[in-house]
Amino acid sequence: MLKLYYAAHTCSLASHIALNDAGATYSTVRISFADDEQRKPEYLAINPKARVPALVTGKGVLTETPSMLAFIAQSFPQARLAPLDDPFLFAQVQAFNSYLCSTLHVAHAHRMRGHRWVDDPAAIAAMQRKVPETVGACYRLIEDKMLEGPWVMGDTYTICDPYLFTMAQWIEGDGVDPSLFPKVRDHRRRMSERPQVQNAVAEELA
Amino acid sequence: MLKLYYAAHTCSLASHIALNDAGATYSTVRISFADDEQRKPEYLAINPKARVPALVTGKGVLTETPSMLAFIAQSFPQARLAPLDDPFLFAQVQAFNSYLCSTLHVAHAHRMRGHRWVDDPAAIAAMQRKVPETVGACYRLIEDKMLEGPWVMGDTYTICDPYLFTMAQWIEGDGVDPSLFPKVRDHRRRMSERPQVQNAVAEELA
Repeated sequence: MLKLYYAAHTCSLASHIALNDAGATYSTVRISFADDEQRKPEYLAINPKARVPALVTGKGVLTETPSMLAFIAQSFPQARLAPLDDPFLFAQVQAFNSYLCSTLHVAHAHRMRGHRWVDDPAAIAAMQRKVPETVGACYRLIEDKMLEGPWVMGDTYTICDPYLFTMAQWIEGDGVDPSLFPKVRDHRRRMSERPQVQNAVAEELA
Repeated sequence: MLKLYYAAHTCSLASHIALNDAGATYSTVRISFADDEQRKPEYLAINPKARVPALVTGKGVLTETPSMLAFIAQSFPQARLAPLDDPFLFAQVQAFNSYLCSTLHVAHAHRMRGHRWVDDPAAIAAMQRKVPETVGACYRLIEDKMLEGPWVMGDTYTICDPYLFTMAQWIEGDGVDPSLFPKVRDHRRRMSERPQVQNAVAEELA
């Protein structure tokens, strides 16, 4: 059985939702960042990166949200969570998720995790000041060039959707006005109405 | 025919090598960052992110190195550049590439592209000071936990290898001592001896 290590309010929610979308049987283990559990030997044995999420499978441990989402889609093909038979369409799905991972999530991380890249408190504060601009620029690109609607890839729901929804939880906190991005906002609302999403969110906040 | 938009000394080299590994027929277009060509309307029509690489295919444009590498592997299955028939092994390949994209490349980018995340010159300098530590930490994890040897995934060459080789071009420039990471250094040397790598490098520097 699949086991998802997650922390509340993090990007692990994307894989958590996708497991629900796939109809997978899974269990969850909550990692408390407040207690620094991600750096304890028990967890480092699972994921030496000291990050969430991690997915324990029958063959070993997987990390990194884009790869976990592709794994879930490929492992549960009947759920049709990605265009698995078309390398170009699959790559488009993956390109969207890679952008969220390496650009949008990184821009967001400069608000609360600036210590990853700098030690000086004044520099951390300077980073935080730019987050509304950098995160906003990502949403401008998503709104205008990427999000087809109603789902990210158009009429078909894919593994892009839980990932965007997860990132979109942080819009207001990042100092970005969601009314500037009506397609993103509508997507977030539409996602929040899905029972699979509600189940994953409820499990994480229980 | 595939057309790769690249800039010299950037991560586009990974896809360029993979196209050679795949035996693909392709053409290249060099984008000059010195001339700011990545922000000109002609290029923004191809890739509105104003970044390289971009791969023009018969079905449309792809961006984001991890997705492009997976696309090349899936489009040329006879080249056996990824374990395409095993979702877990494929996800491991993708997880490695996702880590390079979202953690190692991001750590490196704080040396020369700090303006992406901060405006204050003093903060940019503070970022640069931490790059040897953050990039070094990535290579510590790669050396100790990820790079199986002789290739990233062990005995079989995959799309992880050109990507690691590409990142490893920047080790010294990032202030990291490669002698601390003998497996990474040996991998870089072994890659540099491959004709496919030599061909891609020669095309970019011609």
